[in-house]
Amino acid sequence: MSLLTQFDQSDAAATGRELHRFAAELYPICRSITGEGIRQTLRNIQERIPLQLTEVPTGTAVLDWTVPKEWNIRDAYIKDANGNKVVDFKKCNLHVLNYSMPVHASMPLSELKGHLATLPDRPDWVPYRTSYYKESWGFCLSHNQMLGLRDGDYEVCIDSTLEDGNLTYGECYLPGKSSEEVLISSHACHPSLANDNLSGIVVAAALAKFLMWRELRYSYRFVFAPGTIGAITWLAKNREVASRIRHGLVLTGIGNADAFHYKKSRRGNAEIDRVAAHVLLHNSKAAETLEFSPYGYDERQYCSPGFNLAVGCLMRSVWGTFPEYHTSADNLEFIRPEKLAESLRVCAAIVDVLENNERYRNLSPYGEPQLGKRGLYRSTGGGAIGDEINAQLWVLNLSDGQNSLLDIAERSAIPFTAISAAAERLRDGGLLSVLPEG
Amino acid sequence: MSLLTQFDQSDAAATGRELHRFAAELYPICRSITGEGIRQTLRNIQERIPLQLTEVPTGTAVLDWTVPKEWNIRDAYIKDANGNKVVDFKKCNLHVLNYSMPVHASMPLSELKGHLATLPDRPDWVPYRTSYYKESWGFCLSHNQMLGLRDGDYEVCIDSTLEDGNLTYGECYLPGKSSEEVLISSHACHPSLANDNLSGIVVAAALAKFLMWRELRYSYRFVFAPGTIGAITWLAKNREVASRIRHGLVLTGIGNADAFHYKKSRRGNAEIDRVAAHVLLHNSKAAETLEFSPYGYDERQYCSPGFNLAVGCLMRSVWGTFPEYHTSADNLEFIRPEKLAESLRVCAAIVDVLENNERYRNLSPYGEPQLGKRGLYRSTGGGAIGDEINAQLWVLNLSDGQNSLLDIAERSAIPFTAISAAAERLRDGGLLSVLPEG
Amino acid sequence: MSLLTQFDQSDAAATGRELHRFAAELYPICRSITGEGIRQTLRNIQERIPLQLTEVPTGTAVLDWTVPKEWNIRDAYIKDANGNKVVDFKKCNLHVLNYSMPVHASMPLSELKGHLATLPDRPDWVPYRTSYYKESWGFCLSHNQMLGLRDGDYEVCIDSTLEDGNLTYGECYLPGKSSEEVLISSHACHPSLANDNLSGIVVAAALAKFLMWRELRYSYRFVFAPGTIGAITWLAKNREVASRIRHGLVLTGIGNADAFHYKKSRRGNAEIDRVAAHVLLHNSKAAETLEFSPYGYDERQYCSPGFNLAVGCLMRSVWGTFPEYHTSADNLEFIRPEKLAESLRVCAAIVDVLENNERYRNLSPYGEPQLGKRGLYRSTGGGAIGDEINAQLWVLNLSDGQNSLLDIAERSAIPFTAISAAAERLRDGGLLSVLPEG
Repeated sequence: MSLLTQFDQSDAAATGRELHRFAAELYPICRSITGEGIRQTLRNIQERIPLQLTEVPTGTAVLDWTVPKEWNIRDAYIKDANGNKVVDFKKCNLHVLNYSMPVHASMPLSELKGHLATLPDRPDWVPYRTSYYKESWGFCLSHNQMLGLRDGDYEVCIDSTLEDGNLTYGECYLPGKSSEEVLISSHACHPSLANDNLSGIVVAAALAKFLMWRELRYSYRFVFAPGTIGAITWLAKNREVASRIRHGLVLTGIGNADAFHYKKSRRGNAEIDRVAAHVLLHNSKAAETLEFSPYGYDERQYCSPGFNLAVGCLMRSVWGTFPEYHTSADNLEFIRPEKLAESLRVCAAIVDVLENNERYRNLSPYGEPQLGKRGLYRSTGGGAIGDEINAQLWVLNLSDGQNSLLDIAERSAIPFTAISAAAERLRDGGLLSVLPEG
Repeated sequence: MSLLTQFDQSDAAATGRELHRFAAELYPICRSITGEGIRQTLRNIQERIPLQLTEVPTGTAVLDWTVPKEWNIRDAYIKDANGNKVVDFKKCNLHVLNYSMPVHASMPLSELKGHLATLPDRPDWVPYRTSYYKESWGFCLSHNQMLGLRDGDYEVCIDSTLEDGNLTYGECYLPGKSSEEVLISSHACHPSLANDNLSGIVVAAALAKFLMWRELRYSYRFVFAPGTIGAITWLAKNREVASRIRHGLVLTGIGNADAFHYKKSRRGNAEIDRVAAHVLLHNSKAAETLEFSPYGYDERQYCSPGFNLAVGCLMRSVWGTFPEYHTSADNLEFIRPEKLAESLRVCAAIVDVLENNERYRNLSPYGEPQLGKRGLYRSTGGGAIGDEINAQLWVLNLSDGQNSLLDIAERSAIPFTAISAAAERLRDGGLLSVLPEG
Repeated sequence: MSLLTQFDQSDAAATGRELHRFAAELYPICRSITGEGIRQTLRNIQERIPLQLTEVPTGTAVLDWTVPKEWNIRDAYIKDANGNKVVDFKKCNLHVLNYSMPVHASMPLSELKGHLATLPDRPDWVPYRTSYYKESWGFCLSHNQMLGLRDGDYEVCIDSTLEDGNLTYGECYLPGKSSEEVLISSHACHPSLANDNLSGIVVAAALAKFLMWRELRYSYRFVFAPGTIGAITWLAKNREVASRIRHGLVLTGIGNADAFHYKKSRRGNAEIDRVAAHVLLHNSKAAETLEFSPYGYDERQYCSPGFNLAVGCLMRSVWGTFPEYHTSADNLEFIRPEKLAESLRVCAAIVDVLENNERYRNLSPYGEPQLGKRGLYRSTGGGAIGDEINAQLWVLNLSDGQNSLLDIAERSAIPFTAISAAAERLRDGGLLSVLPEG
C-alpha cells in the first residue's frame, strides 16, 4: 500500500491533533543553538522515534566555522525601581536576546534602551532576536511594554552561562534496500516559535514514524539540528554520508494556513524538485514553486557549491514574508492541526513518488499491445475510454527505457499515483518489466 | 510549379464539389474492419488512383494481435409484434452494432433493451458502436426511437456472417527520387460517418492524384486500412518499409467547419511537426497544434515506442470533442465541399515544404553579397526594402550549412513559400548551392 | 572606479550639452559614402580622440564589392524660369539625391518630375534618398515645395564630381591587456541627419575619450565608416583583426527620446547580447531587446555568416519605424542633450560589465563560510539581511568555476554592479580567487 493510501485510510483529524499536541509539548522549552533546550527537545523526539544524539565539543573546527560555547539560561528579568518585574523571561522566553551573555546590573532607562529590541509596527508582539557570534546581551519586548517604561533605574538580570560544552544534534536513520539516502532536515534551535520550526520538527518526526515499519527503497535519515551551525557541523562530520544523499528536503514553517511553497535545490531540476512540484500540483491548492536562492534555511548549507546536494525546502509561508515571522505571534494558535496533518500528507506523497519512480520497459513495443485480451480494455468501442486505460496507454507508449514514471506523469499531466497504478496493472499483465537503475 | 500554386490556379470550388461527391458515393456503404464494405470502398478509390489491395487471412499473427474473422452483413432489423420494422439497417447502417454476430430471435422488450444503445442527450441521433473483439450483437437507435417502443415481444434479426476470410487494406505507392517515404494514412473502416473518416479518405485520394504526375523528391505511400488492426497489420507486414518512413500524416476528420488541429508525433519536434505547424500558421485561421498523446487514431500505432515514426495527425475537430462524433449526425451535411478543398490545400502546402526543405550554402558568406549588380536589389536607397529582398537577406544570412529553409522560415517568421522563392532567385543568381542531405 | 561611477560623479547635463554641440558642429557637412564630407567629419572627430584615417582607392575589390568612385559636391539647385532658386542645396544638403552625378540642363517640369522625390504624407519634410550603385541624379524636396512648382522650364544644376578617388574610414584603437577586441562601430555617411547617425558618432567618440586613460582588460576599436560599403571595406582589409573581436556594438540612432532598443547579434546569446539586455533591464525604462534580423545597420556585415561576429546594435528608435527617419525632421531638435548623455551612460555600463565579467572560485565552498568573523555579516540575527549580504551569498553560492559574474547577476536578478562589488568584498576577504579565462 502506498504511504499516501495509508495516510488517507487513517484518521487525519486525529493525526493533526497529535501533531499539534507534540508542538505544544515542545513550545515552552527555551531552545538555542546549543544547550539544554535543544538537548531536551531531542529527548522528547526520542520518545517517539529512534534518535541518536551526537554531542560535538565547543571549539571543534567544522568546515569554515567553530563549534561555539554552550549556552544555558535559568532566568532573566528587568525590574523597575519598585522591584516589579516589567520584563520576565519566565513568561516568554523570547524576551531574552537568544545566546545573551550573563549580566546583573543596574542602569538608567537611557542606557538600558541600547539593549532593547521592539517592533514599533506590531506594538503588541515580542520580536525574536539572537546574537550567536558576537558576545552581547539584550531583551526583546513589545513596543507597548517599552513605551510603558518610566525614566529611572532598572535592575537587569540574565542568569545565563556561556561556557565550553557541546553542540547537540539528533539523527534517525531508517535503512532501506539502497544505501543511497533521502535526507529530511529540520532546524531545532528556535525557542517558543511554533511554525518556525516546531511545525517542521513534529511533521518530520511523524514522517519517520510512518516509515519505520515499511520496506524502503532508499535509506532515510532525519536530522534535527540547530540552524546553520548545526547543519554545518553535521556536514563536517558526515562528508561520506553526504555523498550518498540522493534526495533531500528541509522541512520548516509547514503548520500555518498559507499555501505550500517549495524552494528548489540549487540544481533546479533535481528529481526532488520535480517530485515536489508534481505532488504539490496534484495535491494542494495555490502551491508555488520558488527558484533556488542562497538565503533561507539549512538548504543554504546542503546546497553550498562544494556539496551541491539535491535538497529543496518545503514550506507554507516563506521566511521573512509574513508578519508573524520571528515574533511572539508565531505561537500555538498560528499553527493548525489540520494544516500540520496536510503537510504530513504531502510529505508522504513525495516519499511515495521517490520510492516508486522506476523506469519500465514496454515488452510489446511494436504497435499497441492488445489490452482487451488481457482484461485491460473495455469491450464496446465507439465511446470514450476511461482514465485508467488512458494512463495505461501513456505508460506503454513512453516506457522505452528512457522515461521514468515521473517523466510519464509530467508529460501526460496525470497524477503519479494513477501512472504508478497503471504501471502495476501492466506489469501484472506481463507487458512491462522494471529496468535497473542508472 | 509548387503544388500550392498548382492548387491555387485550379478551381477550388469545383475540387470541393468533387471531393464531396466522392464522399457521398462512399457514404452508404456499410464498412467494418473486415468484409465487403471496406473492400468495396477500396475498389471505389481504385477507380481514381492506382491502389494495390492486400488481403491478410483471418488468424494471421500481426504484432501482438491476430487478424479477426471477416464480417459481412446483408440485413438487420427489429420488428414489433405487428411485423413493423421499428429499426431497419437498410435505412441507416449505424443501427447495427458494428461487427455483430448473427442473430434471429424473438424476445420481450425488457431483454432486448440489454442489446440497445442510444444517446439520451441527443435523442434524435443514432450512436455508432462496435464490438470487434468480443462476440456480441446489438442495435443502435435514436433515444426517441427507443422511447417509442412498447412492451411486448420483438423479432430481432441480424443477417450477418462472421467467418474466416481476410482483412483488406489498400496502398497507393508513388515513387520519388529518394527511397525514403512520406506516409499518408487514413482509416477506412467506419460505416456511414462522413467526417470520420470519408473526409480523410477523399482528401488523401485527391492528394495522391495530385502527386501522381509530378517529379517527387520523396516516395509517397497512401495507406487506406481499417483503424487500429489495419495499421497494426500493415506495420506487421511492412517493417522494412516502415524503417524508410521519414515523415507521415494521419488524415482524419478534415471535412467539417472547425479550425485545423495538428497533433504532433511522439517525437514532438520532428520535421513533419514543424512543417505542419508552420503551414497552419501561415495558411489557416485559429489552427491549433496539440502535443502528442497515445490515444487517438492510427498515429497510436505508428508512434508506438518500437516504431516511433515521425507521424502526426491532421484533423479539424478532434475526436471525441464534438457532439456529432460517432453519431448519425456526422453525415454528408456535416462535411462541406469548401472545407474539404481547403484541407486538400493545406496538405498540398505541407507536401510542398517537405519536397523543398533543402539546406543551402551561401557562396559569398563574408559580408552581404552585392545584390544590386545581380539585379536582386532596388536601385534607390533611403526608403524601406521590400519583402522579397528581406527574404533574400534571411536566406543569405542563415545559409551557413546548418539551417534548412524551414529553419529560416521559422526564425524569420516569413512563409516558407517566400523563403523558398528567395532561395531560388539567389541560386539562379549564383549565390547559393544546395547541400547534400544528412 | 567603474566607468559608470565615473560617469555618475561627473556633470551629466554638461556632458549632454557637449555631445549635442559636437553633433551641431557636424550637422551641416554634406557627407556621403565617399568624399570630402566624410573625410571632414573624421577630421573633426580626430580633434577629440586619436583617429587613424585609411584611404582605400576606387576600384579596390572588397569582399563581393568594389570601392566606388569618390563623390564631391559644391552646389546644386533648381531655378525657375525667372531665375529664382526654388530648390537650393546650400539651404539643406538633403535636397540632392546623395551621390548624384553632375548635371546642368534645362527641362520642362514634366521631365524634371521624374527626378524629384517628396513625402506626400509629410508635406513639409524633405526626404533623404541615395543612388550609390546606379549612376543617376535627382532632387529631394518637400511635397509642398513641389506642389508650388508651376509648369514651365527649369534650370537644374548639380555641381558634383564622381571620379576615381578614395573611400575613407577612421579607427581609434585603445590597447588593453588582452589582444581580444571590443568593436564599437558607427556609420558616418549620412548628411544632415542628426539621430541617424550623428548621435552614434558623438556618443562613440565620447566613449572612446572616456576609455583613453583607463587600464583596460580588452582592447577597444572604434570604427567610423560609411554604412555598408565602409563596413565591408573595413572587414576586407582587417580579416585578422576581425578574428580577434570578442564583443561588438553598432551605435546608431541613440539621441532621440525613445526607449532603448537592443538588437541581438546573429548568435543570439553572445555575451554582448546578455550584457546589453542586463544593463538595459537595470538602467533604463521600457527598453526592448530585439531578435537578430539580417536587415538594419552594419551589424548586417559583421554578422554575415562568414564572420558571424558577436556584434549587436544599440539604438533608441529602430530604423524605419519612426516618421522622422531619413527625413529633414531628423534634425538637431530631434536629438536631445540629456538623451545623448544617457546613451553614453548605458554604453559605459555595458563596458563595465564586459571589463569586469570574470569567473571566480569560492575558496570555502563547503557550507557557507563564516562571513561574520570577516566583518561581512551583521551581528544581530532574527531580522532580514541586507542587499549587500544577499549579493555576497549569491556570489559565494554560484562561484563554482562555472558561473561568471554576469551569470550570477542574471540568476539572482541583482544588478551586475552590486554583484561585482560583492565579489570585490569577498575577494578582499580572502574568500574568492579569480579564474583564468577560457
